Amino acid sequence: MSLHIIGLGLSDAKDITVRGLETVRKCTKVFLEAYTSILLCPKEELEEFYGVPVLLADRELVEQGSDEILDAAAAGEEVAFLVVGDPFGATTHTDMVLRARERNIPVHVIHNASIMNAIACCGLQLYSFGQTISIPFFTKTWQPDSFYPRIKSNRDAGLHTLALLDIKVKEQSEINLARGRKIYEPPRFMTVRQAAEQLLLIEERRDEGVCAPKSLAIGMSRVGASTQVIVAAPLEKFAEAECDEVFGGPLHSLVLVGPKLHPIEADFIRGFACEALGGLEALNEVIVVEE
Amino acid sequence: MSLHIIGLGLSDAKDITVRGLETVRKCTKVFLEAYTSILLCPKEELEEFYGVPVLLADRELVEQGSDEILDAAAAGEEVAFLVVGDPFGATTHTDMVLRARERNIPVHVIHNASIMNAIACCGLQLYSFGQTISIPFFTKTWQPDSFYPRIKSNRDAGLHTLALLDIKVKEQSEINLARGRKIYEPPRFMTVRQAAEQLLLIEERRDEGVCAPKSLAIGMSRVGASTQVIVAAPLEKFAEAECDEVFGGPLHSLVLVGPKLHPIEADFIRGFACEALGGLEALNEVIVVEE
Repeated sequence: MSLHIIGLGLSDAKDITVRGLETVRKCTKVFLEAYTSILLCPKEELEEFYGVPVLLADRELVEQGSDEILDAAAAGEEVAFLVVGDPFGATTHTDMVLRARERNIPVHVIHNASIMNAIACCGLQLYSFGQTISIPFFTKTWQPDSFYPRIKSNRDAGLHTLALLDIKVKEQSEINLARGRKIYEPPRFMTVRQAAEQLLLIEERRDEGVCAPKSLAIGMSRVGASTQVIVAAPLEKFAEAECDEVFGGPLHSLVLVGPKLHPIEADFIRGFACEALGGLEALNEVIVVEE
Repeated sequence: MSLHIIGLGLSDAKDITVRGLETVRKCTKVFLEAYTSILLCPKEELEEFYGVPVLLADRELVEQGSDEILDAAAAGEEVAFLVVGDPFGATTHTDMVLRARERNIPVHVIHNASIMNAIACCGLQLYSFGQTISIPFFTKTWQPDSFYPRIKSNRDAGLHTLALLDIKVKEQSEINLARGRKIYEPPRFMTVRQAAEQLLLIEERRDEGVCAPKSLAIGMSRVGASTQVIVAAPLEKFAEAECDEVFGGPLHSLVLVGPKLHPIEADFIRGFACEALGGLEALNEVIVVEE
């Protein structure tokens, strides 16, 4: 009996590690964590590749009822809990590990890539990143901007900021929530354009030059997939309507570049200019290379 | 013709992704980057598993002569460049990618886990980490402490710090260097104990309470391997001789924990107490939980 927490990596079924695949195939129960991130391939593709049925574990199952998962392990089964990215990526499953520990269920972790390390494919050194931030979907009345001082503090230390963009899975409308109806809205994924709009809105309000229209940013979609897109441009360009077409489907991420770049980083980033978003000309205007 | 830069993950041959393995097997030339990190398994194990010969690429080959690698790709071969961890982990290979770009050689990246994201298995949220630091081997006359203000700035922002510990591969003794003899010392890997000693030395000198003897730290060795060790203790305990036996062989990493922990993080970390290094009693003395 064991709980195997297995990272699936960034994109499709074949991004699992060889050890991860061997482990899944010997498990008798396989759950897929499906509420903090999304898989870029259909669940059926995983099932076919693994040769085992995969059960979707939503937030309710994991947070309130994860005893269903642990019960199976306690009863002697080999249980796999699959997590998009790394098991301890943006969201950790420490709570489940703690409960497994209390019940003396051995936990094995199989790591994989997550956006937290793969982001370096944009050409910026990982150790030049400060604290990672999350940007939540704003509503008319709820526009939290606690990310703003964090970007500022990173910038002040000469560091870049990775912004993770909001994902809404199994969201209830206000009416359905009020009436206690378990009817869910379709999943929503924040785009680079939406993130840029919100950042510029907060910059306008707070005006500390943290994420100004002319600050250098890197938008990315589907990092690690064959359809990956990376574009560098002034932040204001990402707020334009063209942006949605450039980046396409989910998942999107955004890097707010620190005040200065190494010459090699600058060269690398020039390769990510995009005509539809101002091209090399607009990009060069906002690249600052350290002397 | 393509250059495939493939992450090997953290531990042994089976940590490569399924897509990575399929790609290596169809390559006609396979290089292994062997100077910024080390593999925890022998090269022969990789060769047997991949079914292809693996050429060691040391720093000279990659930095001065990486044309040997790019020439093969330009001549129409499928070339794999294997990197321990993620291709863009602690060290990026942006320079090689830039040169490939200049020669119109398509570059494909296959991501994997690296210490930069796997570190979260110690139970601390990745987004509570600030800038990552590197601790170099001190000599009698060279004891750079630029990491000290970085840990301080992370702490001031309430953040943890991951410390990457020095690796010396293909090092020349002063005499051999002076005489131009290409005779190399055996590889050296900084241990948690050595890192703790150096940190305490700098703390004694600068005395700003950044990495004091009683500050909470987490030592880790061989993260992601089946022999992985994680121990939480006051930093001073890691400077004791017992420490080497606790952690065993390379690679070692160290986390300097921020000023306060979530209650769940604190619970998680208590599971990493180690009798030989003060046990739960010493650990509890230095855990500060936020209210």
